[in-house]
Amino acid sequence: MISITAYMNVKPEYREVFLEKVQQVVELTREEEGNVSYRLFEEVSNSNQFVMLEQWKDQHAIDVHNRSEHFQTFFASAKKILAEPLTLKRFINDDD
Amino acid sequence: MISITAYMNVKPEYREVFLEKVQQVVELTREEEGNVSYRLFEEVSNSNQFVMLEQWKDQHAIDVHNRSEHFQTFFASAKKILAEPLTLKRFINDDD
Repeated sequence: MISITAYMNVKPEYREVFLEKVQQVVELTREEEGNVSYRLFEEVSNSNQFVMLEQWKDQHAIDVHNRSEHFQTFFASAKKILAEPLTLKRFINDDD
Repeated sequence: MISITAYMNVKPEYREVFLEKVQQVVELTREEEGNVSYRLFEEVSNSNQFVMLEQWKDQHAIDVHNRSEHFQTFFASAKKILAEPLTLKRFINDDD
């Protein structure tokens, strides 16, 4: 299993647009065969700092996701919506 | 570096108590020599599901934290505050 933590710092004026667009991505991603978990969280002390906690079966599942129309559509709008580039951390589980 | 993701599902009636107690833990943990990052997030679709994203220099740093008074005090109240036991996921970074 591969875990990814994706940090997204959203411009305050795009908060509602972000939430609408990302919700579509969440729903469609969870339907992907290779996705194990895909959950969106918001930092308690910083209301426009979000993080997506992702779990994938394998690298192929991530490749399929990255090529998907829903992810590509979201990614294309990210530059406008995010205050800084998306930060990804990738982990291999140490306790599964 | 060791990363820990700690999921906490808080009883709705203890939400404010949790936020107050956990804030103390966040402040004191960030002062620990072995802590790299310690950030609290709340799930967007589930307002009482929290996650602490933790990064530590090494296992010794985690051991020191687990023995600290602030963590022990928080942990002692967790059974009352949490709707289910704390879930921990432990990772070794794959891209550092």
